[in-house]
Amino acid sequence: MNNIKVLTVGKIKEKLYKHKVNEYIKWIKRDLKLDFIAFKDKKPKDLNISLIPYYSSSIFCSLSEDGKKMNSYEFSDFIFKENKSLVFFISGPNGCPEIIKSNSKHIVSLSDFTFPHEMAILIFIEQVYRAISIHKNSKYHR
Amino acid sequence: MNNIKVLTVGKIKEKLYKHKVNEYIKWIKRDLKLDFIAFKDKKPKDLNISLIPYYSSSIFCSLSEDGKKMNSYEFSDFIFKENKSLVFFISGPNGCPEIIKSNSKHIVSLSDFTFPHEMAILIFIEQVYRAISIHKNSKYHR
Repeated sequence: MNNIKVLTVGKIKEKLYKHKVNEYIKWIKRDLKLDFIAFKDKKPKDLNISLIPYYSSSIFCSLSEDGKKMNSYEFSDFIFKENKSLVFFISGPNGCPEIIKSNSKHIVSLSDFTFPHEMAILIFIEQVYRAISIHKNSKYHR
Repeated sequence: MNNIKVLTVGKIKEKLYKHKVNEYIKWIKRDLKLDFIAFKDKKPKDLNISLIPYYSSSIFCSLSEDGKKMNSYEFSDFIFKENKSLVFFISGPNGCPEIIKSNSKHIVSLSDFTFPHEMAILIFIEQVYRAISIHKNSKYHR
């Protein structure tokens, strides 16, 4: 079974986003082992130290506008092609620190657009659910 | 003053999206004339007929995954560079019909990803608000 960890900086404060993100997490957990972990907002150097255990144990992916773009099918393949632990790091409102990018195996871009931090988390988590739907050929993604 | 019309197919049903979209519309209307018009879901041919008045009177832009990608700065320039009426058409869950694409002056892509219809509306409307913030150099977009 695939194992995905989503690491965010800061908890989701806005109720509306929290509700939608939790809904997708619930649905995702029917098919994948998913951990959703919020880190405190720290200096890039300190945040980087907190991430050290994840760099080595998993395929570490950070999200950044300047990363690699994929469509929903490519993202689904990306998640399911290797039976390994994947970590996705969604940084805070100031963007992904260079030190974390340089320690990442992959840098993934959701869009060329800049999104509000909590919206980016929702967009990402919906895309994980869509990836499962594509993989299972279920009717959510048509 | 710039004038933007956002045409969607179907009303936003989900409360959470409706609330957030209405919030951004309220904020946008402080700076721009914005109309948000929902069309009934019809056959592409009939939808195209409903759109005829908009094709000629405005710069008609449709949203589609295969359109042109812009970052938030480019999108802001796109909105503000010409003092003309802009129409953005956000099609229903089945994607933008070819006949409407071929009648569009511009085709704009939010992302390579496929998004749920109502999420795409939220993403777009937030981006219009961000475009204003960039244009005014206000602190929302930093």
